[in-house]
Amino acid sequence: MAYLDHAATTPMLDEALEAYVATAREVGNASSLHASGRRARRRVEESRERVAAALGARPSEVIFTGGGTESDNLAVKGIFWARRAADGERTRVVSSAIEHHAVLDAVDWLGGHEGAEVGLLPVDGTGRLHLDALRAELAAHGDRVAVVTAMWANNEVGTVQHIGELAAVAAEYGVPFHTDAIQAVGQVPVDFAASGAAALTVTGHKLGGPVGIGALLLGRDVAAVPLLHGGGQERDVRSGTLDTAGIVAFAVAVEAAVKGQQEYATRVAALRDDLVHRVRQAVPEVVFNGDPTDRLPGNAHFSFPGCEGDALLLLLDAQGIACSTGSACSAGVAQPSHVLLAMGADDDRARSSLRFSLGHTSTAGEVDALIAALPAAVDRARRAAALRTPR
Amino acid sequence: MAYLDHAATTPMLDEALEAYVATAREVGNASSLHASGRRARRRVEESRERVAAALGARPSEVIFTGGGTESDNLAVKGIFWARRAADGERTRVVSSAIEHHAVLDAVDWLGGHEGAEVGLLPVDGTGRLHLDALRAELAAHGDRVAVVTAMWANNEVGTVQHIGELAAVAAEYGVPFHTDAIQAVGQVPVDFAASGAAALTVTGHKLGGPVGIGALLLGRDVAAVPLLHGGGQERDVRSGTLDTAGIVAFAVAVEAAVKGQQEYATRVAALRDDLVHRVRQAVPEVVFNGDPTDRLPGNAHFSFPGCEGDALLLLLDAQGIACSTGSACSAGVAQPSHVLLAMGADDDRARSSLRFSLGHTSTAGEVDALIAALPAAVDRARRAAALRTPR
Repeated sequence: MAYLDHAATTPMLDEALEAYVATAREVGNASSLHASGRRARRRVEESRERVAAALGARPSEVIFTGGGTESDNLAVKGIFWARRAADGERTRVVSSAIEHHAVLDAVDWLGGHEGAEVGLLPVDGTGRLHLDALRAELAAHGDRVAVVTAMWANNEVGTVQHIGELAAVAAEYGVPFHTDAIQAVGQVPVDFAASGAAALTVTGHKLGGPVGIGALLLGRDVAAVPLLHGGGQERDVRSGTLDTAGIVAFAVAVEAAVKGQQEYATRVAALRDDLVHRVRQAVPEVVFNGDPTDRLPGNAHFSFPGCEGDALLLLLDAQGIACSTGSACSAGVAQPSHVLLAMGADDDRARSSLRFSLGHTSTAGEVDALIAALPAAVDRARRAAALRTPR
Repeated sequence: MAYLDHAATTPMLDEALEAYVATAREVGNASSLHASGRRARRRVEESRERVAAALGARPSEVIFTGGGTESDNLAVKGIFWARRAADGERTRVVSSAIEHHAVLDAVDWLGGHEGAEVGLLPVDGTGRLHLDALRAELAAHGDRVAVVTAMWANNEVGTVQHIGELAAVAAEYGVPFHTDAIQAVGQVPVDFAASGAAALTVTGHKLGGPVGIGALLLGRDVAAVPLLHGGGQERDVRSGTLDTAGIVAFAVAVEAAVKGQQEYATRVAALRDDLVHRVRQAVPEVVFNGDPTDRLPGNAHFSFPGCEGDALLLLLDAQGIACSTGSACSAGVAQPSHVLLAMGADDDRARSSLRFSLGHTSTAGEVDALIAALPAAVDRARRAAALRTPR
């Protein structure tokens, strides 16, 4: 099989799985006072230090969560609630138009359920959010904005934002800035302190750790109302029994991904560039989406004119190639990607797109397999689409 | 080591850990459309069927979550929000006074943050919630109650409630009834359909599964507003990448715990009865807390007059005995248990209590070790307390 869907989830590193198993064999709740509990607590705190060191944060800024969706929801809703509680005028939440649904749907909910005003920042044709857009938003509404959220790198088209500059603009207006860095950590350099962000989301299963564990890096002076109340385990911002085994495995994976990032990026970007070059040769009318250079090393995203992305995905799947349309699919009804629409693509282009994402196990042989299968699949998908929608 | 703290967390079953590892070695996001994704989806749906069958639920009623705290918060807040949205008069939330903090603190938050009216139902001296209390509450306020929540069995003193009867009273008034069954599953028979509950919380790490995975059983016609927005993975009630490995391991553990429940309960209750008998012999002035017979098979809970529970815990820990005060400890300041206070205990009795909880790895040797260490530890704790608080 050629697995070209690492952005959806990437294989767990052997050392992370081994760390999980070794820790899971030790009984002990990290909140218990006895020796077993203290050992578990030690494992958690050592892991917290490792995650913090790898990501340029202080240990006390690492809030372990159940993963990226929880971290994003906690950041967006929690900071919104805390800021509104401190200042009743701060009822506006600002997000880029190309956020992951874990952010966008949380923002929408604040709009529909909590009476928040929502500001969506536009992006350009490469998926880039411009400083001017954020500056204009804050110049107009800065004193009413509770939180700004913009992702470090886009999960569909791979465009990397200039996060430090965006955070600096938010800071000028005294507005906390959250960034979803789920796709960025291990792919590009990520340093929480240097970024100037108030909060940053990271998750395990995109970088070789387990699913169901992640963190929100939360500045020490940034207040957030909890989503999950209870034992108060994580700085009283997040409750729930600490998943010691998951946390240890997560820390191993974060550390490995960050340590190996540069070498990884060089190797994987070369593979990706080869993939892009050969896809363009094989299907000359293909449109390459996202920023041509300032993008995630493993990401290649194309529109295949005249094809349905879903059909192409299934035809490639039949040849043992795993990739993604990058579009949300709910209840069996494929929606065109909100990311591509925000980038100015029309419905056809949005629906004709496919994401190939490489990762730590990717090989040249997998790229060869894609290139061998692609022309026939495109041809077949195009004929199927033509039959269904005569023009 | 004598591990007598299974109610805090119990060792993961070998077969659950093996299932975790085997599944974690397979790459694939259960929301992906390609073959790897479909295999992951199959694993998740098979696990959903196993959990449902073990707990008397329909597969579509199983919402996988990140654990008990999340399930409790989702049930309490989510059902409250949904009911209030459907009927603006339903602004009251009713809970027993002895719930776990994951429920109580969620209820408190609804009171403080969402303007809910809170009704707390009293319990008797054994920790039992009486039908009359619920009936009186609903007779007075039934048309304004959004949700009632009461735990199946108490995590501290082990008293098992008559959940079916409580749920039936709630049903008379058309109020959804949630029960936190975290301590009950695998310990006593639990059948969701037969219980009449609208929602039921279960978690992995109390029954031999992993930490960080659990479920909310949610009746098909029971609406709940999500806590975590995003991809909409679980019936649009809970978002977040499905933790396939954790879910598979959880299902293995739930099935094993439920299948073995009767034999387990017989064996562990015999050990526990021996422990209780010998603790009473060794420390005749001990007070045995909770219902004398209708209690969790592994739970023994005592007050040791004249002792500080925390001191006794640490003295026993020094002898290799792991147990719990059963009281929440936040920021190093031990609080007397709200459960014991609600049962009518005074502050001294509440502070002097210890929980010994047995589980699937418990042996007679561990009980022997406790009995060997206990008299000296009690003696020492008593002298320390007398020095600190002369009477």
